[in-house]
Formats: sequence, C-alpha cells, structure tokens
Amino acid sequence: MKTDPSPYSMRLYGDSRSGNCYKVKLLLHLLGQAYEWVEVDIMKRETRKREFLGLNPSGKVPILQLDDGVVLAESNAILFYLAEATPFGGGDPLARAQILQWMFFEQYSHEPNIAVARFIAVYLGLPADRKAEYEAKQKGGGRALRTMEKHLATNPYMAANQLTVADISLYAYTHIADEGGFDLSAYGAIQAWIQRIQAHPKYIDML
Amino acid sequence: MKTDPSPYSMRLYGDSRSGNCYKVKLLLHLLGQAYEWVEVDIMKRETRKREFLGLNPSGKVPILQLDDGVVLAESNAILFYLAEATPFGGGDPLARAQILQWMFFEQYSHEPNIAVARFIAVYLGLPADRKAEYEAKQKGGGRALRTMEKHLATNPYMAANQLTVADISLYAYTHIADEGGFDLSAYGAIQAWIQRIQAHPKYIDML
Repeated sequence: MKTDPSPYSMRLYGDSRSGNCYKVKLLLHLLGQAYEWVEVDIMKRETRKREFLGLNPSGKVPILQLDDGVVLAESNAILFYLAEATPFGGGDPLARAQILQWMFFEQYSHEPNIAVARFIAVYLGLPADRKAEYEAKQKGGGRALRTMEKHLATNPYMAANQLTVADISLYAYTHIADEGGFDLSAYGAIQAWIQRIQAHPKYIDML
Repeated sequence: MKTDPSPYSMRLYGDSRSGNCYKVKLLLHLLGQAYEWVEVDIMKRETRKREFLGLNPSGKVPILQLDDGVVLAESNAILFYLAEATPFGGGDPLARAQILQWMFFEQYSHEPNIAVARFIAVYLGLPADRKAEYEAKQKGGGRALRTMEKHLATNPYMAANQLTVADISLYAYTHIADEGGFDLSAYGAIQAWIQRIQAHPKYIDML
C-alpha cells in the first residue's frame, strides 16, 4: 500500500467493489479532478493492517488523503467537501441542508439495509446464520426505496432540482440493489433517475 | 399537534426523551435562537399520524419547520443548517468536512448502537426477544465509545478545536449512554469532554 507522496493533489484509498468508495470516485470523475487510486481489499482485511490504521484508526474505506497529508474519512463527508464550491454541492444554505438530509438518510436508512444485504449475499454467499438478518434488511431496504420512489415521482433529483452529491450518495448502492435482492422493476421513478445520472457525459461505471 | 403559523421564526417538532431531538434543542439554546417546541410522542405513534406524515413522510422526529413552511428532517442536517454561519459550524471547508465526518460516524456507528440499546432497555423494558440484539449493540457501542475516547485523549473537542455541532451530535446519546447499559467510568477523556460541554453558560439539560 502506498504511503509516499502522490503525484496527484489527492489520493483515494478504496475497495473497487464498495459502493461507498465508488461514490467518491464517481464524483471525482464528474468534477474532472485528477487523483490517485489506491486499492485496499476489505476481504483480505487490508483495512485492519497497521499501515492503514495509521491513516484511519476506524479501519474503514474510503479515505481521501489531501496533498498536505490530511486524511478525511466517511464517504458522505468526503463528497460534501469535494462538492462544496461546485454545482454538485447545491448553492444556498437550504439546498445544502436538503442535500445533507438525504445523505444522512442514505447512511441511516438506506446503506445499512441495501449495502449490508448485498454484502451478506455477494461477499458472504448468504450463509444460513445470516438469513434472518438478510430478510430484515429486505424490509428496511424496501422502505428506503419506497421513500426515494415517492420523492423522485415529483422531483428530477433528490435535492435542489439538479444533480448533487445527494444523488451520487444514494445512486451508489441503489443502482446495484439487485445484488442485494431488491427488484427495481417496481420503481419507475428510481429507474428514470438512474438513467438521468448515467447520461451525464462524465459518468463512469463502478467496475 | 400545531400546524398553524408559529409566533416564532422556527418550530421544532420532537419527543423530549429522544437524543436526536435534544441535539437540535440544545443547539438552539446555545445559539440563543427563539423557537416553538411541539411535543410529538413516539410511543403513542404520533409520528405515524396523517397530520405528522404530511410534514415529514418518513415519520421521524425531529423536524424543523421554518417560517416559510419549509420542513427539514434528519437531526444532523438540521444541526448543520442552523450552525452554518456560526462558530458551531466550524469555519473553513476542512473544518466543516471534519465536523461532518464525526456526524456521519454518529449516525452510522454510534447512534444505531447506543441509542437503540437505550431504546430497547428504557422504552421496551429489555424484552427476551430483543436480548441478542441488545448484546450486539453493547459491542458496537463500546467500539464507538473507544473511538471517541482515543480522539478526545488528544483533542478538546471532536473537530476544529472548538465546540461544534459534531460535539452536540455525539453528546446527545453519549451523556445518557448509561441508560443503554454503557459504563462511562472507563472513559476519562469522554467524561472530561462531557463536563466541558455542560460548562457552557447557555447549556440546557435534556429533560
């Protein structure tokens, strides 16, 4: 794992299969911001090694290291930081508050259900002793998707009537929700929103 | 429940026993901002009534209603909005990012363990069928407290070397963690931090 100075102004440590890491990667591409990617394999427990813990004691990816060495953690805090002075950050205080509202919804009501269901299914192979938890996640994830569907039925984007980090945050695990057992065919407004995001000329796929 | 225009410039709907609602109340007091409090009883399912769902379709408190009728949800998004132009909001982009980093930590790694353990113990009376979940929350909550303790051992506050909404957010459920079964006596730095917050001349207790 690289810890020497980067030739770029920022270095992103992440696992390519993680939606939380993809969020930041996607925003950097939309912004046209050059960065260095450092792959950190969660399943090989590379986030628990001393070298990584020296950068982020909480042992989680993604982290963003700035050129002065400062490290930022928490995907949505990183998104907000990168977007703040750009159109992806909203514009006025109320727009920022509504963007943050959806980003906290994402980390409290969406990700812990949809991303964790996907993790149990894809990474762990849905073992018998996680089946009850997986089923509970289906219920919570369905609730989160219905909340999004209702909002997107009358709004083109999650906040501020434009593509912001609220969308990028929620897009990461929504567009691969099928891997967690969620059928998006019933969610027409979410599907249209996914297509709007993918139509951005600087859009980049997860893998 | 009141839905007519408020004599104050903002109206806060909350349940007095909820740490998420207390966060916002505490900040409003620290700011010296007048507001109207509307009590909404979670256990009486008042957040699920049509009148409340009209204000917040997700059926959660707290919500903050501004004088033009706009409603903000998610406690930490509300905190950030209220604090943005004040010292409690940090100051520069990096400080804001670090504040948000801890607020996302609070909603992902702290609140779902400590607040939910307290809910199971205090509100539900620790029923047998929630015992395993309660025990799992002890483990996750302990991890979150150790992360805070480590940070506060070398920092007076969570971010920006001053009292910010990152502290207010984490304080809410930390100072009553004992109600969720967490013994704070082993966490000296957290205890000193709690005392620093309570020493603020405009500090107000939860109940």
